[in-house]
Amino acid sequence: MLIIDKHSYEPLYIQIYQQLKNKIISGELCEGSVLPSIRTLAATLMVARNTVDSAYQQLCSEGYVLGKVGSGYKVQKIDIPNMVHPNAKLLDFTNVVEEVQVSDTVKYDFQYGKLDIANFPLRIWRKLLNYVLLSDEVRGITDYNEKKGDLALRIQIMKYLHESRGVICRPEQIILCSGAMSALSLICKLFDTKTVAIEDPSFDSAREIFVNHGYRLNPVSLASDGIDLEQLKVLDTKLLYTTPSHQFPTGIVMPINKRLHLLDWANQNGAYIIEDDYDSELRYNSRPIPSIHSLDQNGRVIYINSFSKALAPGLRMGFVVLPQALLEKYNFNFSNYNCSIPWLEQKVMYHFMEQGHWNRFLNKISVSNKRRHDILISTINSQMSKHTTIYGKNAGLHILLEVDNGMSEHELIEAASQVDVKVYPVSNYWINAQNYSNNMVLIGYSSLSEDEILEGIVRLSSAWF
Amino acid sequence: MLIIDKHSYEPLYIQIYQQLKNKIISGELCEGSVLPSIRTLAATLMVARNTVDSAYQQLCSEGYVLGKVGSGYKVQKIDIPNMVHPNAKLLDFTNVVEEVQVSDTVKYDFQYGKLDIANFPLRIWRKLLNYVLLSDEVRGITDYNEKKGDLALRIQIMKYLHESRGVICRPEQIILCSGAMSALSLICKLFDTKTVAIEDPSFDSAREIFVNHGYRLNPVSLASDGIDLEQLKVLDTKLLYTTPSHQFPTGIVMPINKRLHLLDWANQNGAYIIEDDYDSELRYNSRPIPSIHSLDQNGRVIYINSFSKALAPGLRMGFVVLPQALLEKYNFNFSNYNCSIPWLEQKVMYHFMEQGHWNRFLNKISVSNKRRHDILISTINSQMSKHTTIYGKNAGLHILLEVDNGMSEHELIEAASQVDVKVYPVSNYWINAQNYSNNMVLIGYSSLSEDEILEGIVRLSSAWF
Repeated sequence: MLIIDKHSYEPLYIQIYQQLKNKIISGELCEGSVLPSIRTLAATLMVARNTVDSAYQQLCSEGYVLGKVGSGYKVQKIDIPNMVHPNAKLLDFTNVVEEVQVSDTVKYDFQYGKLDIANFPLRIWRKLLNYVLLSDEVRGITDYNEKKGDLALRIQIMKYLHESRGVICRPEQIILCSGAMSALSLICKLFDTKTVAIEDPSFDSAREIFVNHGYRLNPVSLASDGIDLEQLKVLDTKLLYTTPSHQFPTGIVMPINKRLHLLDWANQNGAYIIEDDYDSELRYNSRPIPSIHSLDQNGRVIYINSFSKALAPGLRMGFVVLPQALLEKYNFNFSNYNCSIPWLEQKVMYHFMEQGHWNRFLNKISVSNKRRHDILISTINSQMSKHTTIYGKNAGLHILLEVDNGMSEHELIEAASQVDVKVYPVSNYWINAQNYSNNMVLIGYSSLSEDEILEGIVRLSSAWF
Repeated sequence: MLIIDKHSYEPLYIQIYQQLKNKIISGELCEGSVLPSIRTLAATLMVARNTVDSAYQQLCSEGYVLGKVGSGYKVQKIDIPNMVHPNAKLLDFTNVVEEVQVSDTVKYDFQYGKLDIANFPLRIWRKLLNYVLLSDEVRGITDYNEKKGDLALRIQIMKYLHESRGVICRPEQIILCSGAMSALSLICKLFDTKTVAIEDPSFDSAREIFVNHGYRLNPVSLASDGIDLEQLKVLDTKLLYTTPSHQFPTGIVMPINKRLHLLDWANQNGAYIIEDDYDSELRYNSRPIPSIHSLDQNGRVIYINSFSKALAPGLRMGFVVLPQALLEKYNFNFSNYNCSIPWLEQKVMYHFMEQGHWNRFLNKISVSNKRRHDILISTINSQMSKHTTIYGKNAGLHILLEVDNGMSEHELIEAASQVDVKVYPVSNYWINAQNYSNNMVLIGYSSLSEDEILEGIVRLSSAWF
């Protein structure tokens, strides 16, 4: 017998459906038994026939009963041994593990990558977002759009790359991705021989992506002017991942000669160079250095970059420029891939660039980042120049600091935390740890104020010397 | 001799730098020759010393000259044979290929996936976006945030999945991705044995992702109640990709029995089931059907879904729910992966769900989609029921229409276009084409008005019969 509660928040047909389902699962209603006709049950329960009909339809669509016109609704065989009642599992929200990254309480956090919200063009961004939401462009939000990303935006990026990086390409070579690392994921799928030469040290995130795509890593150590060509030449690989503008993490700038030699190597071996141009917009004592791509005559360079270092990592916006040969492979193998960047972001970024805000913004932040950089360097020099060496200054958002006080990397970080300062390890960027002197820390300066930078360095000096 | 133009828009130091660089590349300034001292050149050109200094710094950082304190600036060897001048390549914007997807001009386009902008909660979305932009939450935009996605949003999704799909999980099992297919890309990297069983027919985009990750596809054909278990059981595979709630494209709903047998298969073989629950929110004559995940007692089901079918594909927002064993592998191998969804979208979606808009929205659109669905079905029945069979009604945003008039799929589509109606092929969803009768078309109804649907079907009937 079914009990229904006409005052319950649960629709009547749900109550009927639930009780019948439970009777079937428990076996009370066994295989082959026929449910009462809709008319009969409706009358017994004093509900509308539609109500019973809906309940039966639900049982049919879930496969508990089979409804045949004329012959009524027959219970089906549910024949998995000791099956538990689907509703048996109940979620206890009280013991939900909340793995929040508790926002670090360290006062002077020299974190790398995080930017100062004060530098973000919030007013303009908000204006453009509202403009797009109120314009006809908003229609794109309920559609799948151009698979490589909005063409208008790709043309803006094409122009910017040409003017600022000497990169010459057509918009169809540009594919928008959720940051440079997701561009790298895409590249990984374009090669069949899964080996790559990679600078050692280098981004651990890039290494992780190669490994997760089944690549064997060939670490190549660094000379004073960047990647060691002799080591590279003896390797059996057709792919190189490099950060020539500002080698990560060492900050080495690859000179023109080595760039040309790299291209020569690629041409000789039919190899490709992945040029990760990650913070090339940010240089403080000179213009950005022309990319390897700008020197490439034979389509050997895959160029990747993002808006994370200059504008905002939280936008998750980057791109890859594919040479012709790889572009054809992409067009063939990735014809169903949708651009992973939301429509609104793409349109806002398009207007941001098209209206010249991007170029103005770059000038503005390189001034404010240069100020941070200069106070960092001058304070280090005044406080501890004798026992420290700075690597990778005059560009980007970080430096490496080598400290000669007998402390290991770990001890340096520990001592810093004692004076409420957070600096970061470098060891995780090395593949061959033995090449690392283990007396360095990474110092990011893009999120602290000038005063905080100064005070932070003073404290470090007191903690280390 | 250098010529500089004090009225040029180009900064003086750039002019000096450019001319010196060109002389070095052309060989006019040969290896070893020493540049004039800063003082001398500044005097000759009548510019500030800083200006010359900047030009020299740029040449140094690019590696054209080597600057030694005291011994001046010495030109370096640029020794690549017949190197072309970097500035030789010039971009001709006039012949930039614009591969715009010209918006289709067909009047009655039964496109699948595109939604009606009128259904999108534009006012609320805009309100929430502005709220986030003006609140302290906006800080996340200049930071790298939680790698699996905003915890608050993942908790909302966890609750929704529990209530509506019977999926029971903890927030740390949920990883936000740029749509269901990018969730699938992630899953592909979690398995070493690269074979997968996949329903035939099925999403071509899913197949493409498996192939691009090096997977061998084991097609399994469909019985009337979904995937053929006997075929599956004889396969040597530990992974199955399925769409049980509304098999794509056939629309078959997998009954409870088969779901339990699939779980049984997975338990016996230590296999995993990827349950793509892609349009389960949209059902028109019954409640959503409990997911396979809700029946799973042993962590054999990987659940994926997105907000693309119900809310908006242009948001590029989806997620995967990983079982414990795979979660550990993910945490270990993907520790550096950043969530690919922009911060603003995540926060807006969080507030959208937390304030109850999402549930209200689901009710609203299932009403409007049901209206579209009903007019589509009734018109087909009234116009051409005798010679057509409808597959996959009562759910989702599309149906398959089998047409028995002797025309092939291609001919059906051609005939439709003659009356300004666009319907879509199905053949591309089959791996084994011989299993396909080649007399079907796919009809999506989520972007047309009821009148357009009615008129479109009337035209199809006239074109086909």
